[in-house]
Amino acid sequence: MSKSWFGWAGRILCINLSTGEIIKKPLDPELTRKYLGQAGINAKLLFDLTEPGIDPLSPENPLIFGVGPLGGSLAPCSGRFTVTSKSPLTGIFGDSNCGGHWGPELKNAGYDHIIITGKAEQPVYLWINDDQVELRDARHLWGKNTWETDELIKTQLAQPSAQVACIGPAGENQVRFAAIITNLARAAARTGMGAVMGSKYLKAIVVKGNRGMGVASPDEFLQTVHKSESDIQHDPLYEVATTFGTTAITGLAQMLGFLPTRNFQASTFEEAENHRGEVILKNHVTKHKACFNCPVGCSRFYKVEEGEYAGTVGEGPEYESIAALGSKCGNAELPSILHANTLCNQLGLDTISAGNAIAWAMEAYQRGIIKSGDFAGDDLLWGDHRAVIDTINKIALRQGLGDVLAEGALRAAKKLGGEEFVVHSKGMDYPAVDVRGTKGMALAFAVSPRGGDHLKGLPLYEVAPEVYQKDIKTEIGIDITPQYWAEYDTKAELIFWHENWHCVVDSLGLCKLEGICIKPLKPSHFQQLLATATGWDISIEELEAVGERIWNLERLFGVREGIRRKDDLPPHRLYNELIATGPGTGEGLDHDKYEVMLNKYYQLRGWDEKTGIPGRERMQKLGLEKEIEAVLSVAVVES
Amino acid sequence: MSKSWFGWAGRILCINLSTGEIIKKPLDPELTRKYLGQAGINAKLLFDLTEPGIDPLSPENPLIFGVGPLGGSLAPCSGRFTVTSKSPLTGIFGDSNCGGHWGPELKNAGYDHIIITGKAEQPVYLWINDDQVELRDARHLWGKNTWETDELIKTQLAQPSAQVACIGPAGENQVRFAAIITNLARAAARTGMGAVMGSKYLKAIVVKGNRGMGVASPDEFLQTVHKSESDIQHDPLYEVATTFGTTAITGLAQMLGFLPTRNFQASTFEEAENHRGEVILKNHVTKHKACFNCPVGCSRFYKVEEGEYAGTVGEGPEYESIAALGSKCGNAELPSILHANTLCNQLGLDTISAGNAIAWAMEAYQRGIIKSGDFAGDDLLWGDHRAVIDTINKIALRQGLGDVLAEGALRAAKKLGGEEFVVHSKGMDYPAVDVRGTKGMALAFAVSPRGGDHLKGLPLYEVAPEVYQKDIKTEIGIDITPQYWAEYDTKAELIFWHENWHCVVDSLGLCKLEGICIKPLKPSHFQQLLATATGWDISIEELEAVGERIWNLERLFGVREGIRRKDDLPPHRLYNELIATGPGTGEGLDHDKYEVMLNKYYQLRGWDEKTGIPGRERMQKLGLEKEIEAVLSVAVVES
Repeated sequence: MSKSWFGWAGRILCINLSTGEIIKKPLDPELTRKYLGQAGINAKLLFDLTEPGIDPLSPENPLIFGVGPLGGSLAPCSGRFTVTSKSPLTGIFGDSNCGGHWGPELKNAGYDHIIITGKAEQPVYLWINDDQVELRDARHLWGKNTWETDELIKTQLAQPSAQVACIGPAGENQVRFAAIITNLARAAARTGMGAVMGSKYLKAIVVKGNRGMGVASPDEFLQTVHKSESDIQHDPLYEVATTFGTTAITGLAQMLGFLPTRNFQASTFEEAENHRGEVILKNHVTKHKACFNCPVGCSRFYKVEEGEYAGTVGEGPEYESIAALGSKCGNAELPSILHANTLCNQLGLDTISAGNAIAWAMEAYQRGIIKSGDFAGDDLLWGDHRAVIDTINKIALRQGLGDVLAEGALRAAKKLGGEEFVVHSKGMDYPAVDVRGTKGMALAFAVSPRGGDHLKGLPLYEVAPEVYQKDIKTEIGIDITPQYWAEYDTKAELIFWHENWHCVVDSLGLCKLEGICIKPLKPSHFQQLLATATGWDISIEELEAVGERIWNLERLFGVREGIRRKDDLPPHRLYNELIATGPGTGEGLDHDKYEVMLNKYYQLRGWDEKTGIPGRERMQKLGLEKEIEAVLSVAVVES
Repeated sequence: MSKSWFGWAGRILCINLSTGEIIKKPLDPELTRKYLGQAGINAKLLFDLTEPGIDPLSPENPLIFGVGPLGGSLAPCSGRFTVTSKSPLTGIFGDSNCGGHWGPELKNAGYDHIIITGKAEQPVYLWINDDQVELRDARHLWGKNTWETDELIKTQLAQPSAQVACIGPAGENQVRFAAIITNLARAAARTGMGAVMGSKYLKAIVVKGNRGMGVASPDEFLQTVHKSESDIQHDPLYEVATTFGTTAITGLAQMLGFLPTRNFQASTFEEAENHRGEVILKNHVTKHKACFNCPVGCSRFYKVEEGEYAGTVGEGPEYESIAALGSKCGNAELPSILHANTLCNQLGLDTISAGNAIAWAMEAYQRGIIKSGDFAGDDLLWGDHRAVIDTINKIALRQGLGDVLAEGALRAAKKLGGEEFVVHSKGMDYPAVDVRGTKGMALAFAVSPRGGDHLKGLPLYEVAPEVYQKDIKTEIGIDITPQYWAEYDTKAELIFWHENWHCVVDSLGLCKLEGICIKPLKPSHFQQLLATATGWDISIEELEAVGERIWNLERLFGVREGIRRKDDLPPHRLYNELIATGPGTGEGLDHDKYEVMLNKYYQLRGWDEKTGIPGRERMQKLGLEKEIEAVLSVAVVES
């Protein structure tokens, strides 16, 4: 590795909210070599800074922000940052990746990471203006939603182009799936990072960066950037991505029958036609929108012009939000979904966990687990869009049933009953893919180190194998068939590969939509972009090994908290029940075949088949000697 | 009452299959005065001829056929007969009412009732040709389906116009919901009367009647007949009934959201459009069809001309069969429903219980209660029309999973698990009405003396109150509102009234579709038709009291077998869960309000509120002194 890392000294900003101490530390090159940056270094910092068993909402839990080595550079889709902490939703490793412009701004202010520790005495926000870093009073902002907060801060600082990452009332009230919002609509949504921020009385982190960033080999870097952009623009799915973004998935999900409906009771939604990307584009989209330096621009601004939600504006919604606030709740009313999406962004809520919590509660009402009157005024009926909106508000404000749901669907069910209807792994609510058809995704969602999740190992090819057949053969060495989605064979290999590269992309600072979920950018792009930006002569194999190391570190965090093989199974409904509607009817997960696939996956990972604990030998090979010993010492004590 | 009862001496034909004894007895006028005929007298005969606790499939259980005083007369819709026995499906009172031409033929042969007792040594059939009555060898017919049997018998007897009521393989194999079939497609379907016939080795009862029947006051009778026909033809629903028959209900059920789908998990079916009466009429109906002396002709012959079911012909299907073999099983394929309907008629199966058993099994597969491979080759998936067809065959032949389902959904669930998903009352599977919206039907289905049933008290107005608002006010004294279907108030009164009159119509020998379910024929018609036919100067109030007596006798039969208040509750899913799809979403039965309604109903009936046992005082008033004492003596012993 070259001595120059980006051509300037990377820094970590350490803020102790309890003491008010602010420290700027140089980024240890050893850390970057082993964990690249962003998600990877965040994970290592979290692992080192936490003792097992701490309360995620206590001052002891650090909240860590990170931007990758390519974040904020000219590399395409480099607008991401990652927030990492012990998750108040799951009690294990938590992190969340977010787009927009805040990450690049932080990089341009000269920081790669921020570590927030302790707890302020009263609400504060952090103001970073290059080297000038200060904590400011935020009492006047407490209770304000994210849109109000964003505007008030920019106005009061007279910094209209500052980037604000903040929490809304949900984070303040420590809703366990509260998000951190930037650019009004880009959310670090999952695993409740907003609740951790709220528990620290930290309302916002505001950044203005004016330093710029250099790269090691400007000409070669630019060449690679141009090739990457061109490959993105010539990808077979580029037109779809740039026109519809993820809203294109709704139609696909309905057609293929993986659209979760009424809390995963059905896998197609009779009103899905009206939720398709084309409908949203025609009736609601006012303008397309891109994150920092993105040639795709998959996002869209929307507007509702008629009906009871007239006047609603916002950005998105992503497919996940459409399904979570739509079909999962049996909600046919598209304008209400747009409104609910805006509301979640304003209140600072993860749309997925919010939608799943509401959907679970609707099923609990359906089945008489919650009875009318148990929570006055909170009857939740399938498809009642006003109830969806109302409950989102009540979750954020912790009112009535919303206070119970604010703990997440799993905790709510443990309190009220109906745990078998919570579709989650490790306490995190599932995204909008019925994985009973796609066996690889079933594995990926179940073993994800942050719980039920599509963003830690998603092989999007599974539902469109024909598009990428050649790539998968070339890159991963896997032959796929037209029925590939329904097979178990080679899925362990597929997921192993994807998980490693997801870690790489999340740690470099690029967007996964173009980077790994669909395939224009391949490992060779990542390697060349990194090498030319940093001067680090790293091979593709070495890069994948870094990904594998990060993945294992995230796993080790969970294992240290008690995660074992039993936690790597899909949720009851998806594991034990069969798809009931649509083209996938009768598809389900075969227990024997799933166990065989899981064994194969453990073998590839070098994990103990019985316990699911990473093996000492492989961890040593990955340079995680200290970490595995620390975890094993806890595991031994416990057993 | 006039001495002349129909102008000729009514008779009961008694057949002891064990001994071969054949006895013809005059119909006791006391019996007709107290129970009218058909269903009423059948019930009284059954009550007197059975000891509590007998096995319904043993020789001790009598099988009783009956035709009412108006059956086979010129009175409109007078083609019905009733079969009564202790039900092998429910273990309580069982009976089934059937149209076509067999009942009138029996009447014209000079018999009002047939009592079959004992068991033949080998398969026989009963041949009645006026006074000539004989048991004939049926070994060559055993194993034949109902269509083959019908044809073979007529050919071998050289009696092409004889009427055949027979069982198919399902009855032979004592499938607990086997039907008795006449005219190839008219079924005495519910409560497993075909299984009782099979248990007796009785393959068929074949009738040719040449005696004709007289009435007491021919001119007045004809006048009443003409008025009745005219009233039927001027009913607001006449056009619908004559054009579509009960298939008109599919569209209504989908529109109002009471169409049971996927074993009552949903209350609308996304493919219902294709099951509407209009679609069947346009694509499949070849000719309209009427039962004996019916001015409506609600039935239809159908044909499938294309696809894998091409060549299928049959009669019907009724709404109940469309839903049972269609939406309840998630089955969108209309031709397969027509085929399954024909198959049920050929094999001799109740389409409702067959469809519900298959739907329950599909849910058991969905939920992993039955697992793929548990029953080789019998995986049942929602909407798999070939599996529906296959399972119907296997139920009738008692093969594989079909052998378990042949015991009925409740017994199957008790064996395999998943009892909470069986939608039944007192062991009988529910018809295709999601009663969570219609509170009166919820009560009617739950308290029916033969178990979950729409034909013992159905107030069809509930779903179309505006059509009959005036009638209900005039006749029953109940004011109804546009939201009447969703109310609990006055529903006990409504059901009380309907149950009594259902008993009257079933005992007179008329069809309930025109007689009570929709309203062209009213109590005044029944009274006038009966009075002019028999010369019996009975008032409308006295006639209703007869209905009340019959109702209570059927209840007493159940009470003698252990039926109590707990058995008068709707099934788990409908009582504890809320409607999940369609316009009724969120509708459910309020336990408190249901209990209040049930108390009110018990008060109207003079039943004990705590136990549900009919009160001694009211029973004495109804002339059921002996019966209540017999039941109480058993109930006391038991407690």
